[in-house]
Amino acid sequence: MMMQVPLTVGSILEHAEKFFPKKEVISQTHDKLHRVNYGEIGQRTRRLMSVLHELGIQNGDRVGTLAWNHHRHLEIYFAAPGMGAVLHTINIRLSPEHIIYIINHAEDKVLFIDEDILPLIEKIKDHLTTVEAFVVMTDKAELPESNLTPLYSYEEILTTGDPTYEFISDIDENEPAGMCYTSATTGNPKGVVYSHRGIVLHSYALGLADTAAISESDVSMPVVPQFHVNAWGTPFACTWFGTTQVMPGPRFTPKRLAEFIEKYKVTITAGVPTIWLGLLREIEQGDYDMSSLRAVLCGGSAAPLGLIKAFEEKHKIPFYHAYGATETTPLVTLSRLKSYQQDLSAEEKLKERARQGILVPGLEMKVVGDNGEIEWNGKDMGELLLRGPWIASEYYKDERTEQAFVDGWFHTGDVVTVDEEGTIQIVDRTKDLIKSGGEWISSVEIENAIMTHEAIFEASVVAIPDEEWQERPIACVVLHEEFKDKVNKEDILEFLRPQFAKWWLPDDVLFMEEIPKTSVGKFLKRQLREQVKAHYSLQD
Amino acid sequence: MMMQVPLTVGSILEHAEKFFPKKEVISQTHDKLHRVNYGEIGQRTRRLMSVLHELGIQNGDRVGTLAWNHHRHLEIYFAAPGMGAVLHTINIRLSPEHIIYIINHAEDKVLFIDEDILPLIEKIKDHLTTVEAFVVMTDKAELPESNLTPLYSYEEILTTGDPTYEFISDIDENEPAGMCYTSATTGNPKGVVYSHRGIVLHSYALGLADTAAISESDVSMPVVPQFHVNAWGTPFACTWFGTTQVMPGPRFTPKRLAEFIEKYKVTITAGVPTIWLGLLREIEQGDYDMSSLRAVLCGGSAAPLGLIKAFEEKHKIPFYHAYGATETTPLVTLSRLKSYQQDLSAEEKLKERARQGILVPGLEMKVVGDNGEIEWNGKDMGELLLRGPWIASEYYKDERTEQAFVDGWFHTGDVVTVDEEGTIQIVDRTKDLIKSGGEWISSVEIENAIMTHEAIFEASVVAIPDEEWQERPIACVVLHEEFKDKVNKEDILEFLRPQFAKWWLPDDVLFMEEIPKTSVGKFLKRQLREQVKAHYSLQD
Repeated sequence: MMMQVPLTVGSILEHAEKFFPKKEVISQTHDKLHRVNYGEIGQRTRRLMSVLHELGIQNGDRVGTLAWNHHRHLEIYFAAPGMGAVLHTINIRLSPEHIIYIINHAEDKVLFIDEDILPLIEKIKDHLTTVEAFVVMTDKAELPESNLTPLYSYEEILTTGDPTYEFISDIDENEPAGMCYTSATTGNPKGVVYSHRGIVLHSYALGLADTAAISESDVSMPVVPQFHVNAWGTPFACTWFGTTQVMPGPRFTPKRLAEFIEKYKVTITAGVPTIWLGLLREIEQGDYDMSSLRAVLCGGSAAPLGLIKAFEEKHKIPFYHAYGATETTPLVTLSRLKSYQQDLSAEEKLKERARQGILVPGLEMKVVGDNGEIEWNGKDMGELLLRGPWIASEYYKDERTEQAFVDGWFHTGDVVTVDEEGTIQIVDRTKDLIKSGGEWISSVEIENAIMTHEAIFEASVVAIPDEEWQERPIACVVLHEEFKDKVNKEDILEFLRPQFAKWWLPDDVLFMEEIPKTSVGKFLKRQLREQVKAHYSLQD
Repeated sequence: MMMQVPLTVGSILEHAEKFFPKKEVISQTHDKLHRVNYGEIGQRTRRLMSVLHELGIQNGDRVGTLAWNHHRHLEIYFAAPGMGAVLHTINIRLSPEHIIYIINHAEDKVLFIDEDILPLIEKIKDHLTTVEAFVVMTDKAELPESNLTPLYSYEEILTTGDPTYEFISDIDENEPAGMCYTSATTGNPKGVVYSHRGIVLHSYALGLADTAAISESDVSMPVVPQFHVNAWGTPFACTWFGTTQVMPGPRFTPKRLAEFIEKYKVTITAGVPTIWLGLLREIEQGDYDMSSLRAVLCGGSAAPLGLIKAFEEKHKIPFYHAYGATETTPLVTLSRLKSYQQDLSAEEKLKERARQGILVPGLEMKVVGDNGEIEWNGKDMGELLLRGPWIASEYYKDERTEQAFVDGWFHTGDVVTVDEEGTIQIVDRTKDLIKSGGEWISSVEIENAIMTHEAIFEASVVAIPDEEWQERPIACVVLHEEFKDKVNKEDILEFLRPQFAKWWLPDDVLFMEEIPKTSVGKFLKRQLREQVKAHYSLQD
C-alpha cells in the first residue's frame, strides 16, 4: 500500500525552504518595504513556533491575528498550524461588538496585532475573556505605549525563538489549521474551521493549469485581505510553489496597487469587484504599465460585465471570474473558456467569461430548485449545493449549522443557473430573489444590466411587498458624478426594456448617493431593503 | 470542520462526465480507429461496473488487464476501482513464467485481454489458479476461437450492463485502487498497490502549472504503456481535466506516433528515452509537422544529453526530464528551469534541463551517503529516499519489502547528486556504482559522456572485479551503422579524457552489436556484467 503521510500546512513552507529559499516576499508595512526570502521566512516561522510554544500555546489552541497583508502575517499563517495551533484571522472591519464576540467565541489565547489596529483592541480589552498575551507587529525598536498587557514586540520576541524548531508532522490531517468568521445577515458572525487537509488540497486546486495556474514564475499580489478566507488561500499556494509574493500592506490605495503592479511586475492578483473598479479608474487616469498581469482573479460578488470588458478588451488584462465563500476555503468555480469555446464570437466569449465558471476538480455540486435538481440549460434556477474536502461541514459551535448544512451538503444560499457546459452563473441570493406573481425575478440580473449603462456607478435591486404580485423589484442606483441630474427614471427603464420581459422591469428607480455595503464591499441588501421600505413608508 | 469526503478514482470520471462530456478519446485498436467522448466513456464504464458486479467481483478483488493503450483499457481503469475492485495492469512483455506468477500472486479473478495477446494466455491458462473469467477486447462481432473458458466479448457483455450503475463513494480513500508489478533484478516481480488517495493526489500533481500542467486544452498521447505504472498516471489526470486523449494502440511504430502527433495535434506525450530516440529518427527522415507539441515527458531512465538537445534545439520541441518508479505512482521530480534560471547561458540551461528536476509538491526527499545526509552541492552522492502519500510503503505480500522500505522511507536504490537549487541528478543505481580505490565512479556519467560521441548509438558501463582497485569500469558500446570499424578504443578514450579524472576512465572499451535490455527498454546491467566477465574469463 501507499504510505500514510498526512497533508499538513507546515509541509508547504518546508517545501519552499528547501526548493525556493531565494525567492522573495516583498512586503509593505507601516514604516517600510521589506524583502524577505523563503529561507528567512522559514527560519523566522520556526522561531515564531517556538515562541508560541513558550507562550503556552498547545495543540488546537487558537492564535488570533488583526492584521493587514504582510510578511509577518504570512509567517503566522504557517507558525500557528505549523506547531499544532489554529490560525484565527479576524476581520478588522467588523464592529467592535462582533470582534469581541468572535475573539471570545474562538477563545483566542494570543493576539497578533498591527500597530494601527492597537487602539481598537485597547478599547475592547476588558471584554476579552481568553486572551493571555498580545504581540504588536511593529517595525519600531520600541514598544508603543499601550494599556495591553503583557504586550510583546514581534521582532524582539522572535530573537528569543529557536530557528531549528520542527513543524509538527504526526497529526491527523483533518485537525483544524485555521478559522475565519463570516458575517451573518442577522446575529453574530459564524465561524468556519479550516483543516490541514482542506488547505493543502485547495492549494493543489489553485496550482492547476486550468484554474489559477499559480507558478514559481508568477509574482502574486493578494489584494483580498489575509483576514478574509486566508486571502483566498493564495499565500499558502504561492509559498508551496515558490511564487514571489507582493503584500500591499495596510490601508493601500488604488494608486499603490497600480504602482506595485508596475514596479514588481505582478502577474497575478486577486480581489473583489470594488477593488478592480478602483484600479480601473486609477489606470485610466494615470500612465501605468500593466503588461505583466496575466490574471486578475475576481470573486466575492459578481463582477459587472462592463468591468470585465474594460479589463479584457480595453486594457488587454485577462480577467477571471471566480466563485467561493468563507465556508468553501474558498475556491469553488473559476471561469475559463474550454478549448472549443475559443471559436465563439467575441461577444459570446465575454458573456461566457462573465459567468462564474465550472467546478474545480475535487468538489461536487448539485443545483436544486423547487422540483428537485434543475436541468443544465442555462435557464432553470436553483440553489447551489456543495460537497468536498474543502467545504465546511458546520459553523463552529453554532446552532445555525443546521440551516446551512443538510444531508451532507452545504447549502450556499446562492441561486444559480447552469448551462450545458456546466458553467454556473450566480443569479441571486435565495433571500434576495424576487417572487412576483408566482415567478422568480433575479435582482442580480437586473443590477448587472443597469450597471452596463454609462451613467451608472453602481446599482442594487431589492423587492418591496406588493399586494397583487406578492413582491415587486425596485432599482436603487448611484450615478457617476458627471451624470448627476442628467438621467431620470424613464431613461433607465427605457434602457432595460429591450433586455427583459415586461414584468421583470422595476416598478421604480431610486437615485441615491451611496448603496450600503458590508465590511468586505458587498451590497448590504437587508439594510437597503429597509431604506427603500422606509422611503415608501411600507412595513413587512 | 471540513467535510469528510474521500478522494476516489470514480469521482475523476464523474467530473469528466459532467463537465467535459463532449471531449474525446481517440483510440487505435487492432481493427479500427475509435472516437468516444467522456459522456460515452462514463456510460460504458458504468455498464462495465455492473458487468463486473454480475461476474461476482467484490470489494478488493483484483481485475487483471493484458492490453495496449486504448479506450477500453481506459474504461477498466475507472470501472475496477470505481466499483471497489482493484485494477491490476499486467506487463505483457514479461516472460510467461513471470506473468503466471503475478496473476496467481495477485489472485486476479477476471482477465481483460487484447485479441493479439490471447495466444499468450491460452498457453499458460492451466497454470492460473484464481481466474474465473476471461474477457477479450475485440472489435469483431464474433468471439475468436479459443480454449479459454468462460470467454466473453467486451462489447457484447457491455450491452448487458447498467448505464446508471453508481461509482462507489463510501470507501476509505486508503483502500487499493490499482496494482502493478515491477521486475526485480533477481527473482519474481514485486507488486506495488496504488490507493485511491495516492492516485487522486498524484493527478493533482500532474495538473500543476509547474509540473506537466495537464489542461483541458491539451491533446495527450501516452506512449508509455497503460500496463506500466498506469501510463505514468496520465490517463487519470487527463480524464479529470477533460483533456483529449490519443491512444496509440497495439504494436505502434515511430511512424504511427509521428503521424498521430501531426494528425491529432498532440500537445503532450510521455515515454522512455528509447521511444524518443525512435521518434527522433523518424521525424528526421520524414516530413512531419510537430509544431503542436508543447511537452515531451521523458522518464524511466536518464535521457542522453544529445537526445534532449536534438528535441529542444534542433526541433524546438520542449523536452522535460522526469523521474519516478513503479513504487512512486510514479511522478517524483520534473525538470523545469526556475524563473531566475532563464538568465543562464544556453549551455547551462541545457545542462540543468538534463538533470531530473526538483521534487513535486506533496512529497519529501532525503539523500543519504556514507556519512548521513549529503550536502546539496551538486557533487556529493547518496541514495535517494522518498516519503509521501503516493509512495509505496511495501511490496505486496513480499518479504523483499524490508530491504526497500526502512524507517518510513522508500529507498529507491538510485544514487543522486542534488545541486543548490534542489535539482537531483540520477548518477547511478546503488548496485551499479563502481567502487574504485575507495572512491565512487558513476557508470551513468561515463555512459552519458560516451553517448554524446557522434559515432555511438548506445553505451553502457559496468564494473569488473580488480585486485588492486577493488573494481574498475569497462565501457560497452554499440556504434552507428556508418561508423562500424571506423572507431577504436583509443578514439573513445581520447574523447573522454578531457571530461574526467584519469582514474574514472574505463580500462577497456568493448564494441558490441547490442546491449541487453529489460522489457521496458532499460539496460540490463546484471546480464551485461556477466557477458563482460565472461569475455575476460573472470569470476566473482
